[in-house]
Amino acid sequence: MVKVAIIGATGYTAAESILILLRHEQTQITYLTALPEECGHIAEIFPALKGRLDLPVEPVDLNKLSKTADVALCCLPHKVSMQFVPQLLSAGVKVVDFSADYRIHDAALYEQVYQVEHTDKENLSRAVFGLPELFRQRITGADLVANPGCYPTAASLALAPLVKENLIDPADIVVNAVSGVSGAGRKATLPFHFPEMNENLFAYAVGTHRHMPEIEQIVTDFTQTPVQVLFQPHVAGMDRGILESIYCRPTAETSPEKLMQLFKSFYADEPFIRILHEPPKTKNVSYTNFCAIFPTVAKGKIVVFSAIDNLIKGAAGQAVQNMNLICQFPETMGLL
Amino acid sequence: MVKVAIIGATGYTAAESILILLRHEQTQITYLTALPEECGHIAEIFPALKGRLDLPVEPVDLNKLSKTADVALCCLPHKVSMQFVPQLLSAGVKVVDFSADYRIHDAALYEQVYQVEHTDKENLSRAVFGLPELFRQRITGADLVANPGCYPTAASLALAPLVKENLIDPADIVVNAVSGVSGAGRKATLPFHFPEMNENLFAYAVGTHRHMPEIEQIVTDFTQTPVQVLFQPHVAGMDRGILESIYCRPTAETSPEKLMQLFKSFYADEPFIRILHEPPKTKNVSYTNFCAIFPTVAKGKIVVFSAIDNLIKGAAGQAVQNMNLICQFPETMGLL
Amino acid sequence: MVKVAIIGATGYTAAESILILLRHEQTQITYLTALPEECGHIAEIFPALKGRLDLPVEPVDLNKLSKTADVALCCLPHKVSMQFVPQLLSAGVKVVDFSADYRIHDAALYEQVYQVEHTDKENLSRAVFGLPELFRQRITGADLVANPGCYPTAASLALAPLVKENLIDPADIVVNAVSGVSGAGRKATLPFHFPEMNENLFAYAVGTHRHMPEIEQIVTDFTQTPVQVLFQPHVAGMDRGILESIYCRPTAETSPEKLMQLFKSFYADEPFIRILHEPPKTKNVSYTNFCAIFPTVAKGKIVVFSAIDNLIKGAAGQAVQNMNLICQFPETMGLL
Amino acid sequence: MVKVAIIGATGYTAAESILILLRHEQTQITYLTALPEECGHIAEIFPALKGRLDLPVEPVDLNKLSKTADVALCCLPHKVSMQFVPQLLSAGVKVVDFSADYRIHDAALYEQVYQVEHTDKENLSRAVFGLPELFRQRITGADLVANPGCYPTAASLALAPLVKENLIDPADIVVNAVSGVSGAGRKATLPFHFPEMNENLFAYAVGTHRHMPEIEQIVTDFTQTPVQVLFQPHVAGMDRGILESIYCRPTAETSPEKLMQLFKSFYADEPFIRILHEPPKTKNVSYTNFCAIFPTVAKGKIVVFSAIDNLIKGAAGQAVQNMNLICQFPETMGLL
Repeated sequence: MVKVAIIGATGYTAAESILILLRHEQTQITYLTALPEECGHIAEIFPALKGRLDLPVEPVDLNKLSKTADVALCCLPHKVSMQFVPQLLSAGVKVVDFSADYRIHDAALYEQVYQVEHTDKENLSRAVFGLPELFRQRITGADLVANPGCYPTAASLALAPLVKENLIDPADIVVNAVSGVSGAGRKATLPFHFPEMNENLFAYAVGTHRHMPEIEQIVTDFTQTPVQVLFQPHVAGMDRGILESIYCRPTAETSPEKLMQLFKSFYADEPFIRILHEPPKTKNVSYTNFCAIFPTVAKGKIVVFSAIDNLIKGAAGQAVQNMNLICQFPETMGLL
Repeated sequence: MVKVAIIGATGYTAAESILILLRHEQTQITYLTALPEECGHIAEIFPALKGRLDLPVEPVDLNKLSKTADVALCCLPHKVSMQFVPQLLSAGVKVVDFSADYRIHDAALYEQVYQVEHTDKENLSRAVFGLPELFRQRITGADLVANPGCYPTAASLALAPLVKENLIDPADIVVNAVSGVSGAGRKATLPFHFPEMNENLFAYAVGTHRHMPEIEQIVTDFTQTPVQVLFQPHVAGMDRGILESIYCRPTAETSPEKLMQLFKSFYADEPFIRILHEPPKTKNVSYTNFCAIFPTVAKGKIVVFSAIDNLIKGAAGQAVQNMNLICQFPETMGLL
Repeated sequence: MVKVAIIGATGYTAAESILILLRHEQTQITYLTALPEECGHIAEIFPALKGRLDLPVEPVDLNKLSKTADVALCCLPHKVSMQFVPQLLSAGVKVVDFSADYRIHDAALYEQVYQVEHTDKENLSRAVFGLPELFRQRITGADLVANPGCYPTAASLALAPLVKENLIDPADIVVNAVSGVSGAGRKATLPFHFPEMNENLFAYAVGTHRHMPEIEQIVTDFTQTPVQVLFQPHVAGMDRGILESIYCRPTAETSPEKLMQLFKSFYADEPFIRILHEPPKTKNVSYTNFCAIFPTVAKGKIVVFSAIDNLIKGAAGQAVQNMNLICQFPETMGLL
Repeated sequence: MVKVAIIGATGYTAAESILILLRHEQTQITYLTALPEECGHIAEIFPALKGRLDLPVEPVDLNKLSKTADVALCCLPHKVSMQFVPQLLSAGVKVVDFSADYRIHDAALYEQVYQVEHTDKENLSRAVFGLPELFRQRITGADLVANPGCYPTAASLALAPLVKENLIDPADIVVNAVSGVSGAGRKATLPFHFPEMNENLFAYAVGTHRHMPEIEQIVTDFTQTPVQVLFQPHVAGMDRGILESIYCRPTAETSPEKLMQLFKSFYADEPFIRILHEPPKTKNVSYTNFCAIFPTVAKGKIVVFSAIDNLIKGAAGQAVQNMNLICQFPETMGLL
């Protein structure tokens, strides 16, 4: 049994991680931590866990961590994570980090996008980007994995085959994304107050969303082709789910059939990728670690639809998938 | 044209009041006030009003109020309202007050329920309770009307005919109520954060809700019969709407037909009461000032269902109905 | 008082039309018709109208129509409408038609898109396209107005200024649209069964939606520039609202400020257009006849967001706006 | 490995059963059946199962059933089930039946409530009622288990301790229940069409719901005390979840503390019962097999709140719990 700590155990991605790990036959949740003011019994913080996990959430203690855990899922927010990850690593645990702090390889780009100095460049340089379908080999054996953002997961899985095969103009890509509200986290604010957000839909972060450079890096990293993505996120009045509608300019004539063949072959052995013959519905991937993709051609453009559950394949599920790779468990363990 | 001020113009009931008054042919909104830190243009506070109302929200100035308004809709919260109402009245405006501060005739009961000293007992003693279907005559000509709570409106309209006719045991009444989330106001808190409240339903304030004594007072006031109500509120993941399912012990044999006849006759001339032959759906009264009622008999009990829009008949619509009575406008003006 | 008939009074757009007309001081609803099997009292078909409109819905009788109505709002579906409109016109009423049957000027294109012979080419040739902001002068005085589709309304209002001013490549336009479910009509089918559609989001009609040529026609008609639009609709689990996110290739360098100036000036006198400085939220135009537009620049593209209520500005509200023009009422009457 | 067939595999309870069984380490789904016109690959019927279960749904063939399955989860509707269950049993499989057909011991009562002749009285007489918390011993070893209704599950678990201890008047019980829409099944009808049901709440089946006698039978069966329940169901615009608010007349003075002690002790060893100190939220039991109960005293009544997921503890989860008992697996297997 691998012993797992959850660092930052009071948010939605932590709760999802716990639910997944409770079904994972080779792990045991041993330690939960949070900021002192957020501590308490996990079943008080998340009443849905009552009777399922009997652990306090405590301020992190590195000695205790080192004794009780082999792996840490670090669910801290951006900027906070890089203060803790070096300590977690030095306590001897392997880390899957949910924040953006170890995702952007280029520290200068990170600092520009997140408007903060990167204080752990040493670990940044050796962190592995945890999108298993594209970077599986690097992840196996890593001790620090940067778990991808939710939007970049759906976008990159849709774009990688197209860019790899040079089927699209890499400088003319529009990613129109819509997310459920859980993607905004668990902090109560007016825009996400129920009567404001319910029956509502809107765009945000026009031209400036931090996942834009992340998507570009992933695809470029995988294909060695520089890409430019206009990524436009929206939020809809639903709990969970991301749907991305991606519009690309083809470099040559293509057909829905050729695209279908490409995607089916590209993801032939992937347990969590569904290539569909019709547009995916978010509800069909909700509460799963699947990404459903439908590539086609419309009005002279290549259009790809990509759907995930933002909390599972977009966060906690993918983190466990990465943990499985690190621990050399079957990759799907706990996730089906 | 009657000039109307909205005091406390940043909450949901104020926004609804504005929308109704914009359609009211005999009124003009002239003045909007709020706490200094909440001020700004009304269309910034409520973007839905952009292009519809070009007024700033300002800290209240009694001189200005006195010059610009004939009537004030006072949308302040409980306890705050009684600090402002005496000033509003002394500025020479008539007041429809949305808070609980002038609803409970018995100051001692108010103080026990709201856990605060009542600081304006003078006006309390002359305030009129603004449920037009039961107390219309008192309202006409009043200069201070206490606008009823949302739950008490639906409950009292359902109970009044039964108690009046001595058809039910007045000491054995259960009111099971479910409300949409807008009833909880516009302040963002964790329980009403979208991903917490969406797809959720729960009871709250078991045995202790402040609307319990208000319901009892209304019905007793109207019927001269002391009543005891077990009022149990719930909140459901929807924007608006209240449905109350009311269970009573009959004092004698009755029938659905007799009850139907009673309710139809009791509310024969009421423009906002719908007596239905099947259970009301909240959606059919949403965005309206109607109360839909279905009385029947089931398993030896008299069961009455009562539905309103909590923001309209439960707040802003009823306030305008009261204002219409005060101003001697047709009672339905602006409300159909 | 202008007397109005609603032809096809059992769908959502008819219900919205009734609600609007009930607030319109210069009209009276006199006649409601539907297919024989759908008939009944309007308050049984739409319980929300109980106590508000006391009319039966009857099979259409042209004699009666001719005697009771001056104007007909024809809410019939595509293909059915063109069978009735000639009769309505010959009965001497002016018609605002909600279907697509008189929208596409080119009968051959209509027949290809809707896969049916156009059986009323005569009236087609003189029908006026009812988007007042772009074609107001033609509408005033018309006796047959084709009310625009919901998606084309939002898209065309966003695109017209850009194409008119040659700011974008007219052959490279992507319109990503998301609609609430009421846009799909009132017929119960599995995809829109509550537990299927709730908490769901998906694309449909990829490359084939019938509103694509309508958008192209409107913009070309207004600007005399041929345009090519990739229009991609989606449906989200909400009642109402359309949000379109439109991605265009600029023909020259531009800036958010220039775009803002253009849109503000273009729509300076329009009572129902809101030019915003941030992305519109569908909820802020819900239950209104407004279209809210935010034009900007992102990552080298011109991006425009456009939001309407699909049942109001996208159908019933716009129909009343057209009716107001036909009848020479103030254009906003009944709509604010 | 126990081989499991799902009979009637096209509804929501079947889909949930499949999802649970896919996580159950001691079972294998081997056979899926439905009416001929509903057949097809399971992943076409439920796209959420794509890549998770590769089986056709076929018309039932008893020979095949007998060869491929040890246990059948029979998800057929009322009245249909009793035509198939005898055949399933004679094919040598053990049956957990989801319908009402084997729940009501008294055939005459069944026939009155369901308005149909009971055609399998022989098996009715030996069927065991599958509410494990109350009838665990009878279930172990049974070969035909009648899986309880969703509403009766929540109600009976709340009432059993109170009636058993004679704490309440067994003839004065009101059960106010609210369910999510999935409880109404997967057939598309107008009342559950998304734009009708969304943001809506209403009562139905006043005084006549078929679960009323089922609740009475369960509690009477368990306690040997005749009970009379006024059961009033409602449906709210949410996918899943049942919340029951139960109002009882105490037979003697009691206190919240005594009730808490009783419920904690009564359900001390139950893995799926959560006794709470505050009202349960449906969302905290959604997607789980838990029943959350909060007993208390309010205004002289004993009030109990009981929440379950109608598709899990109210159907598929409880069926697997029963199957676990039949097969002598740990009762929680696959359910945590």
